[in-house]
Amino acid sequence: MAGALSSIIHANPRARAFSTSNPNHPLLSRRPTVLAMSTTDQSYWSSIHADIETHLKQAIPIRPPLVVFEPMHHLTFIAPQTSAPALCIAACELVGGHRDQAMAAASALRLMHASASTHENLPLTDRPNTRQTVYHTFGPNIELLIADGMISFGFELLAQTNDPDQNNSVRVLQAIIEISRAMGSQGVMEGQYNESQYGESDGEKLFPAAWLHNVCKKKEGALHSCAGACGAILGGGSEEEIEKLRRYGLYVGMIQGIFNRFERNEWSWKEVNELRELALKELKDFNQAKVKTISRLVETKLCNV
Amino acid sequence: MAGALSSIIHANPRARAFSTSNPNHPLLSRRPTVLAMSTTDQSYWSSIHADIETHLKQAIPIRPPLVVFEPMHHLTFIAPQTSAPALCIAACELVGGHRDQAMAAASALRLMHASASTHENLPLTDRPNTRQTVYHTFGPNIELLIADGMISFGFELLAQTNDPDQNNSVRVLQAIIEISRAMGSQGVMEGQYNESQYGESDGEKLFPAAWLHNVCKKKEGALHSCAGACGAILGGGSEEEIEKLRRYGLYVGMIQGIFNRFERNEWSWKEVNELRELALKELKDFNQAKVKTISRLVETKLCNV
Repeated sequence: MAGALSSIIHANPRARAFSTSNPNHPLLSRRPTVLAMSTTDQSYWSSIHADIETHLKQAIPIRPPLVVFEPMHHLTFIAPQTSAPALCIAACELVGGHRDQAMAAASALRLMHASASTHENLPLTDRPNTRQTVYHTFGPNIELLIADGMISFGFELLAQTNDPDQNNSVRVLQAIIEISRAMGSQGVMEGQYNESQYGESDGEKLFPAAWLHNVCKKKEGALHSCAGACGAILGGGSEEEIEKLRRYGLYVGMIQGIFNRFERNEWSWKEVNELRELALKELKDFNQAKVKTISRLVETKLCNV
Repeated sequence: MAGALSSIIHANPRARAFSTSNPNHPLLSRRPTVLAMSTTDQSYWSSIHADIETHLKQAIPIRPPLVVFEPMHHLTFIAPQTSAPALCIAACELVGGHRDQAMAAASALRLMHASASTHENLPLTDRPNTRQTVYHTFGPNIELLIADGMISFGFELLAQTNDPDQNNSVRVLQAIIEISRAMGSQGVMEGQYNESQYGESDGEKLFPAAWLHNVCKKKEGALHSCAGACGAILGGGSEEEIEKLRRYGLYVGMIQGIFNRFERNEWSWKEVNELRELALKELKDFNQAKVKTISRLVETKLCNV
């Protein structure tokens, strides 16, 4: 992950399409840019990112039935990235856990995010103009079905990490509940629905601030909040640590949500800075050597150039 | 469930649409009809069915956010029924478990089946003629997103049944793995894909026997196989009992799959009878008083009138 926040800014295909299709739009003057992280921090995030990639490639080999695994492999790795899986691992390590303990949860989060992105890009008959720039390699029908399977597959990966030697079954079940809530009724699903109400047909209209706040909270916010909590749960964190990392994730996600929609937002640096301060407050009781790295998710200096 | 097999025959909207739109089709002479069950058997299945309905109505109240829970409630209860959830409960009771132990898994199976049916009926741009008779109360966009949420919600319901007093976390995780496999890469998803290759555009052509066999195995077969295994796992059954009820469910599901597509099949009574015999063989070592009722899923007398 070469610069966690650069991945934030480029995670949203709508933002990408907008910025390339209309390079002279006046709102582009508000585009945030990212200063590079230190080499140590960068190599920490890169190593997490590479480990998740390796784990997922092993979990989704291209094997029979090819009608299932070929598109699943493709859709998982072509989807826009999110920093939620990496946050899940970093949260696990912050509370003293080992990376392996959170690897399946991180992979599940990436699968579910890829599934949600795939479904969001499907050309349904009542949203025929949705993301016309998205090419459907396998056709919408198979992409619909495979993305359903990716949700189940994420839960399967996580449930399989039950290990009698680690006596971790209760923690794994807690993580399953966290992810199911974040992806379902109390998070991403509601955010996706609300966001879909402002389709591309609205052109370049700015999003209202209250609406933006809610969408960022329910989409990127819920996903990262869940990632922080899951990492802490699986790493054996205390109740207090779990709640702190849940809130840290929420603020990280909300900031990312704002930048994902930066070209059509009524956002202000004041709001971003407030969220950043709230986020950092949640980290102050942890091991400060480790905090330095995880806090880069919100501390990377942003310049309004 | 007034006559388990009558619900089988009427579970498939395609079959329904066919039978009403073309009452004089010669294949209708092969329509199987169902003789009534005994009152005792009928009341057993009806009570299971009512208990699942009550459990789901409590689990999905119409509450905020209404944009989520209103369509989720609607889509869950309007979807075609399947006997898999009832089989899950019956399998649990057959191995000596209590109905409550399998209630969340049965509800999850019903939610996932409803989700799969909803997605199967979505009018995508590359299958615009799909089930034109299906009315989309909330519009395809919201139905797509809510059905995603229903998958996660099913896993949430199941994971929440972790109970330290029952020390059941490992069994719950096993059931989650069973359901995720059946609904995903090793079952329903592949069946749906294969079935979608024979769309309505093929008119009234008969399905090839090998294709039919595979679709029935992967769709209804995988769902009922998983239901039998989950019921036995959650009821505390032995490994042997779990495997017997997994196979029993597979045969039940395959027979149901054949009848769900009875108007366009090259099926034969010989094949159905063979599957029925295989199914009954799996039950011979269980408590015979209880076997009498569960075996009604395949024993109800069918007349080729």
